[in-house]
Amino acid sequence: MLSPQRVPMPGLPMSVTIWEVGPRDGLQNESTIVPVDVKLEFLDRLAATGLGVIEATSFVHPQWVPQLADAEDLLTRLAPAPGVRYPVLVPNERGLERALALGVREIAIFGSATETFAKRNLNRTVDESIAMFEPVVRRARAEGLRVRGYLSMCFGDPWEGEVPVAQVVSVARRLVSLGCDQLSLGDTIGVATPGHVAALIRALSDAGVGPDRLAVHFHDTYGQALANTLAALQAGVTTVDSSAGGLGGCPYAKSATGNLATEDLVWQLHGLGIETGVDLPALVRTSLWMAQRLGRQSPSAVVRALAAEV
Amino acid sequence: MLSPQRVPMPGLPMSVTIWEVGPRDGLQNESTIVPVDVKLEFLDRLAATGLGVIEATSFVHPQWVPQLADAEDLLTRLAPAPGVRYPVLVPNERGLERALALGVREIAIFGSATETFAKRNLNRTVDESIAMFEPVVRRARAEGLRVRGYLSMCFGDPWEGEVPVAQVVSVARRLVSLGCDQLSLGDTIGVATPGHVAALIRALSDAGVGPDRLAVHFHDTYGQALANTLAALQAGVTTVDSSAGGLGGCPYAKSATGNLATEDLVWQLHGLGIETGVDLPALVRTSLWMAQRLGRQSPSAVVRALAAEV
Repeated sequence: MLSPQRVPMPGLPMSVTIWEVGPRDGLQNESTIVPVDVKLEFLDRLAATGLGVIEATSFVHPQWVPQLADAEDLLTRLAPAPGVRYPVLVPNERGLERALALGVREIAIFGSATETFAKRNLNRTVDESIAMFEPVVRRARAEGLRVRGYLSMCFGDPWEGEVPVAQVVSVARRLVSLGCDQLSLGDTIGVATPGHVAALIRALSDAGVGPDRLAVHFHDTYGQALANTLAALQAGVTTVDSSAGGLGGCPYAKSATGNLATEDLVWQLHGLGIETGVDLPALVRTSLWMAQRLGRQSPSAVVRALAAEV
Repeated sequence: MLSPQRVPMPGLPMSVTIWEVGPRDGLQNESTIVPVDVKLEFLDRLAATGLGVIEATSFVHPQWVPQLADAEDLLTRLAPAPGVRYPVLVPNERGLERALALGVREIAIFGSATETFAKRNLNRTVDESIAMFEPVVRRARAEGLRVRGYLSMCFGDPWEGEVPVAQVVSVARRLVSLGCDQLSLGDTIGVATPGHVAALIRALSDAGVGPDRLAVHFHDTYGQALANTLAALQAGVTTVDSSAGGLGGCPYAKSATGNLATEDLVWQLHGLGIETGVDLPALVRTSLWMAQRLGRQSPSAVVRALAAEV
């Protein structure tokens, strides 16, 4: 079957925005460096499937992420599809300058809920990273840009173990105070379970950060990503991050495996009768095409199940 | 991390019975024929992890399932662990006679919600299969045995497509009328989504078959098994089928892949603060050991994530 039977579940949102992270978070964590022409075709194919938000690239220094060293070339040559948003990751003021010069209208910054991951990923304490983000977000907002704040390690940290909900709420509030209009709650190592997801969203809501300002970003390391997504939808979240074909992971997080695959997410959402605007067979064909470019099978269950049918 | 952070979710059961199907449903669908000594060690190791119900084998004719042709030898030599239940699958009266002669105290029959799968799997119409089960269940109940009825293709059929909820309810009621004390709702091809699961359980409850008489049996073909499990728990189901290490699948169902892995289920349940009695690291060690016997990696996300840690 090419699509699930649609059986709505009471209490869920009517539509969900899928925030496609494959071209950035996915490719940044693949060992293969993909040529810019292939990335451009990937972006075009993703837009043609109906995805409305596609995180295109990152302005992190090429020394740290050689996979995305072509960010300027990519954005210069990208022909944006009508109605599609192409946010980019910027780590600091220099990254923001480069993004602004290329006409970027939407950015994301990348924070951490834990000190250890802040140190390892950003080489800063949480306080220092917030201080680094402050002028970036201020300038971006002054230029009229939308700003998303990623918040990593919200549900567990490979070095620190359990991460208290109150600690996540504290950092989240600081990112909102800076001017982030959306926070993406990252389960960077994939350990979350649904009750934890519901509890964090409730605690954030109690602290003034409602589900309309949240996105969820789950990894499938322990197979829990879609159950956690269901819990997030039930808690009122309507933006879900995923990566076409399950591309990528997190190279700095010990034992992390890939992002939730967009196809697996779309199967769930369409089965629940929730609109996404995505043409699932076209998306599967795109991920099969990219898997060929990368020389390996997609880890997405739906891509594998539908490979012979699309 | 060897275990998830425990964060309960309101409205879920306090404890769940895991119905371990690896030795029967798992091994029956593996291409490798496992020696009886290895099966006996597998059963002992599974019981030692704390699992309380382990479906041990099947009395289906060896011509159809050569993997379980050693059922009599296995049960003769099995030293049951105290407090552990070892149900076996019986297809017909002859199978029941063999099971009774070996002291089996709990059986399962294997029905289908669709005509096409009944024909292909049982070589009978649904009516004919119910007629075949009738004397089996009557005799089993007269002997004081517990009887589970498996119901396949409850959420979709590879030949018939969508399967109406009313059709599943109709066959389910007939199995309950026969004398089955529990029904296991099978998503044999893995296409279900959470709203469908909730709707079927509600419809069954409305028809007099409450969640206390139900189990769920999900496949991970489209990555949906754990989200569907969450929906079933929310609907009041407290028995969940799974297969250690994700062993097996269904050879008669086109494009089906493996059962929900017990380890992935345990991670979710323990994260939700739901008791299972299972020692997760011991279970992962057992599945790693079995994967070596089968000469391939376990498909379970949790087994892979914890392989280096247990």
